[in-house]
Amino acid sequence: MSNQQSKATWIWYPDDYELWLHASVSVKRQFRGYICPPFWRLDTAYSNVSFRKTFELEKPERLTLSVQGMFVLHMDGSMTPTPYERTPVTSVLLPAGKHELTVKVYNDRMIPAVYAEGETIVSDGSWEVTCYDAKWVKAASSNLNDIAYPPADFRFAYQSLEPVSVTHIEGATLLDFGRETFGCVRFEGMAGKGKLRLYYGESLGEAMAGEEAETFDELEIAHDRPQLFVTPVTRAFRYIQLQADEGLSWEAVTHDYEYLPLERRGSFRCSDERINQIWDVSVYTLHLNTREFMYDGMKRDRWVWSGDAYQSFLMNNYVFFDQDVTKRTLIALRGKDPVQLHLNTIMDYTFYWFIAYYDYFMATGDLSFVEASYPKMLSLMDFCLNRRNGEGFMEGHPEDWVFIDWADMDNRGEVAAEQLLFCRSLETMAIVAKELGDLENGERFHRLATELRTRIFELFWDEDQGGLIHGRLDGQLNKRILKYPNMFALRLDYLNDDQKQLVRENVMLNASVQKIKTPYMRFYELEAMCEIGELDYVLREMRDYWGGMLDLGATTFWEEYDPALPIEEQYHMYGDKYRKSLCHAWGAAPIYLLGKYTLGIQPQAPGFSRYLVEPKLGDLDWIEGTVPTPDGEIKVFMNQTRLSVVTNRSGIGLLRFTSTGRPSVNEGELRLIGHGRYELELPNTDYRYEIMLCQENE
Amino acid sequence: MSNQQSKATWIWYPDDYELWLHASVSVKRQFRGYICPPFWRLDTAYSNVSFRKTFELEKPERLTLSVQGMFVLHMDGSMTPTPYERTPVTSVLLPAGKHELTVKVYNDRMIPAVYAEGETIVSDGSWEVTCYDAKWVKAASSNLNDIAYPPADFRFAYQSLEPVSVTHIEGATLLDFGRETFGCVRFEGMAGKGKLRLYYGESLGEAMAGEEAETFDELEIAHDRPQLFVTPVTRAFRYIQLQADEGLSWEAVTHDYEYLPLERRGSFRCSDERINQIWDVSVYTLHLNTREFMYDGMKRDRWVWSGDAYQSFLMNNYVFFDQDVTKRTLIALRGKDPVQLHLNTIMDYTFYWFIAYYDYFMATGDLSFVEASYPKMLSLMDFCLNRRNGEGFMEGHPEDWVFIDWADMDNRGEVAAEQLLFCRSLETMAIVAKELGDLENGERFHRLATELRTRIFELFWDEDQGGLIHGRLDGQLNKRILKYPNMFALRLDYLNDDQKQLVRENVMLNASVQKIKTPYMRFYELEAMCEIGELDYVLREMRDYWGGMLDLGATTFWEEYDPALPIEEQYHMYGDKYRKSLCHAWGAAPIYLLGKYTLGIQPQAPGFSRYLVEPKLGDLDWIEGTVPTPDGEIKVFMNQTRLSVVTNRSGIGLLRFTSTGRPSVNEGELRLIGHGRYELELPNTDYRYEIMLCQENE
Repeated sequence: MSNQQSKATWIWYPDDYELWLHASVSVKRQFRGYICPPFWRLDTAYSNVSFRKTFELEKPERLTLSVQGMFVLHMDGSMTPTPYERTPVTSVLLPAGKHELTVKVYNDRMIPAVYAEGETIVSDGSWEVTCYDAKWVKAASSNLNDIAYPPADFRFAYQSLEPVSVTHIEGATLLDFGRETFGCVRFEGMAGKGKLRLYYGESLGEAMAGEEAETFDELEIAHDRPQLFVTPVTRAFRYIQLQADEGLSWEAVTHDYEYLPLERRGSFRCSDERINQIWDVSVYTLHLNTREFMYDGMKRDRWVWSGDAYQSFLMNNYVFFDQDVTKRTLIALRGKDPVQLHLNTIMDYTFYWFIAYYDYFMATGDLSFVEASYPKMLSLMDFCLNRRNGEGFMEGHPEDWVFIDWADMDNRGEVAAEQLLFCRSLETMAIVAKELGDLENGERFHRLATELRTRIFELFWDEDQGGLIHGRLDGQLNKRILKYPNMFALRLDYLNDDQKQLVRENVMLNASVQKIKTPYMRFYELEAMCEIGELDYVLREMRDYWGGMLDLGATTFWEEYDPALPIEEQYHMYGDKYRKSLCHAWGAAPIYLLGKYTLGIQPQAPGFSRYLVEPKLGDLDWIEGTVPTPDGEIKVFMNQTRLSVVTNRSGIGLLRFTSTGRPSVNEGELRLIGHGRYELELPNTDYRYEIMLCQENE
Repeated sequence: MSNQQSKATWIWYPDDYELWLHASVSVKRQFRGYICPPFWRLDTAYSNVSFRKTFELEKPERLTLSVQGMFVLHMDGSMTPTPYERTPVTSVLLPAGKHELTVKVYNDRMIPAVYAEGETIVSDGSWEVTCYDAKWVKAASSNLNDIAYPPADFRFAYQSLEPVSVTHIEGATLLDFGRETFGCVRFEGMAGKGKLRLYYGESLGEAMAGEEAETFDELEIAHDRPQLFVTPVTRAFRYIQLQADEGLSWEAVTHDYEYLPLERRGSFRCSDERINQIWDVSVYTLHLNTREFMYDGMKRDRWVWSGDAYQSFLMNNYVFFDQDVTKRTLIALRGKDPVQLHLNTIMDYTFYWFIAYYDYFMATGDLSFVEASYPKMLSLMDFCLNRRNGEGFMEGHPEDWVFIDWADMDNRGEVAAEQLLFCRSLETMAIVAKELGDLENGERFHRLATELRTRIFELFWDEDQGGLIHGRLDGQLNKRILKYPNMFALRLDYLNDDQKQLVRENVMLNASVQKIKTPYMRFYELEAMCEIGELDYVLREMRDYWGGMLDLGATTFWEEYDPALPIEEQYHMYGDKYRKSLCHAWGAAPIYLLGKYTLGIQPQAPGFSRYLVEPKLGDLDWIEGTVPTPDGEIKVFMNQTRLSVVTNRSGIGLLRFTSTGRPSVNEGELRLIGHGRYELELPNTDYRYEIMLCQENE
């Protein structure tokens, strides 16, 4: 943060932009020509909002104003004495002295928003807004700094792509764009009259299936002369089967790839090209799904699901570090008060939302966003606390979806995995409340979390089986051992060393425990394996499972993958032949796993003010990569003989590594902390630490 | 209610149509070319709504569907097996057997709404809707029964009016339409290019004041050939000053009077033509203000103010008996949860909203609307109860407006008049709760009301001064005597006979008590005078006060009138020369006073199942009139020698009258109930009771 003059930016009532945008994109989902509206409440923006700015000027100043909506200006509570044009972009003369300018805006189509720029006065967070609830709150913004682009237009970037192959089959034309992509289709010089049909396929089979494809367009063309024709709806596909009535012709067909411009601040390379390819395809998968919000998948839902989004946030932190999309997504998920149901109707998805704030704060150190969200965090937590059963546990009400994973399990009653997520939610609330100086609530949430954690382990820890059991229904324990509660407990660091050892052997490495089939839960499973030191296992799994998708021709990672299925059933899901999403954000877990556990970089205090660097080669010869932080990147290179770390522009790192011989360093003092384990403080910023490892073959 | 097959009607999520419509009309207010958005929260409709109907058919049936919004149909939870056109009006084949049809609709511009009509299945209150809050509730409707007119279009009637005079003054043209009117202006054969300016005036002075007028239009015309031009915004006016650039010409200018088609079911005539004229102008004033909602006034706010609307409901019951506009208005006023402020920000206006339900229920007997409103009545009452001070009284918080009247009074602290309105609000809640079978809340509200009424009289009744004092601030009684609490106590029947007598002499007839200047509060003042038997006084006041406005040329009644002001100041208000509204609903009080106290007709049980007929001649030779009820009209004629009552089609009347001699009746038995006072039960429906009065001169 600097004290320089603030930049003008579009401002609005808190959360309104995100809620409006979310409602408008949520209904773009289609299934075979019909809309699929989401089955949760969609909240929208306030149409009637007032903005105010108190200022003190030595001399009069002309303020240029652009307003999204109908508006009127008041100065010191009355109509402005000086006239102004009643146009969207206008200007008003601010008088010298101390005054208050009010801009009252109405807009029931898009959100009321204001952009103002004068010599010293600009629209920014120093302005206040009200929806006329007798409270003035800080105006919200989201880095939309161009007067010509009000928040109505979400700005994407575009790239024109030609098909890599065009094939003519039985009167149809098959376009292959080489890999999964997203956007509209552009026909140059389209001429004639008739119907044009486009059947989109993430797989070749889907495109060839005609109206059995998940999405298609049937468009009426009536051109008197050849002219450009662009399809009206953005679609996800690799293949398109084109069917055109006889009277139609065109000169060329291309595709406008539409995407959010994102900088790849993170990187990963290693000695295994298959792992590198997995990282690249993961990043592309995540990139396609990172748009207005963090979406689940590109072809089907394109919805904001809290559980999916949470993983995307964690992956995003290791490659794009785009926090605007994270903030937009968290706001959209939460909606407005009153809370009537869990987020996306799913109990676990409410908890992931809370937990996301913990990870957001650790990654960014941005307390101001957390503060803006705090009232809604409190009311959502109230909603949860009011739904606890007599034992203090959360169990599904009839209207709740208790999900956890697409898998065979009985989620009625008190599900242990849910209680663990609830517990971390309470811990997050305790941390946030204390950071914001709300000590009373901080204490309360801390006490609730501590009590809950004790009760979870009293009830669900099974020493004989060596793990957490599934849950309890109507007072009857369900002693089934599944990976979910155990891997959650590992990632949340709720187990002592003895428990970890038991869980490792009896659950995580136990082949008789039910296998996990979704990349979604493989994310936590493999993270848990990393936490118990099984990095080699994780790398092998990556090669087999993610590599398995690549072997089947995947250009992005999938919603679900079962290596045991025959190829012709790989795209089945939800009872339909091509429903499975082949570009699903939760498929991109390797970004996170490789960044956090191979490069070994993670924050230890908010905003990377302290961070850990603990690279691990596993079975690789060398690794190299970059992890973004709020203030520059951290870079790591490691092979058998050399370890190099470039620190970021602020923050203090702590390096941990293993060396069988005696290592040396160019700066600082190595501490031996265990058998072959060394630690080095990294206080120098923007600095390259070079460690020579005397690695002996064991 | 009948068991006949229900008519198809447009249905939607409860309250959504009214909230959407209210938001869209609330921002039509303008002041000299700028918008004046309301200073309260505007709530809008849910954009994402699902409709469902469970049906059982002996044979398949084709259902015609019109949907306002994007939609998809599901049968028994899945996509419909039979195809349907994806157009706004479509049809679907319902299979035989027991099934559930779901229509999922998204509309973020207008409200999601459905119209469906088959041989046996139609869209009506048997359908359920959800906004995805896990609750299915009864679909709402409002007698919009035409498939071609979805709820997006509020349908008005139009009448083409020519100016009664056209005058040319200093390059301008002055149009006079003879009386206050509302709508757009139509220029036939408008030709040329240039600016056209219309300055609207409720008074001649206002139209001639140019940009000092409250409303005006400055329009750009560019016609290549003569063609029709209609002004874009509806305005209220009697006069228009037209200024046109030289290049412009037109063949004829007329006005499209826009109004809600309403039947005058009530009537009033008497031997005094001035009173008859006051009744006529009152009805016209009310009619102009009765549109999408009950508006305060036509020129300036055109807003829905609860205090104003409450009086309009009461007047409406004596002439149009249009309950649809009452229901729309009550829903719009209440808005959505959470409640954050009083209605229109005004404490008394919250109470009038509650009290309106009492009067609505008495007039209509319609418990179903009350039931639909009950959850929001409860949450608004919770809001009030949570704002009571330690003594159990309501006092203004900093963000509250404690209004009562435009008058000199100190409304800080505990204002007695507010407590009386609060008390009747609690009584209304007690009645409604009991009617709906919510006995626990019924008891609670009854107890709260009883306690409050006791406390009010303990604290504010001043036996020495013979009335209720103004209030208390910081523990200090404000012993000032004003009419407000006393006339409220009279109309709410909170005074015993001794108290009534004291209030009559010391307050209501006491010339040293501050005079009331607004027709708004004159409504309650004159009602209170009627309650203490001062009908002659009321008739005199009507001739003087309302007649005084007529003498000044009024064609509709005003927002405020002070006979003492010189003519050139009569249109001043809020510091501006022409701000006063000359067509203000609260000016139409005579409709109510003449119906309730001269014709003497009012319900005594819900829906006029029992009603009172107590006509009073006052100083008039004869009176004659009709009062509408839910089931037909009640008619009364009375002169010195004859009294005739025609009963409605159901309900039992009770006739009371005074006769100094011995009267006779064509049916039933007269009971003498006091000195010259008689009572007659009217059990025959649709029947003319004729009473011969032997009136002797006293």
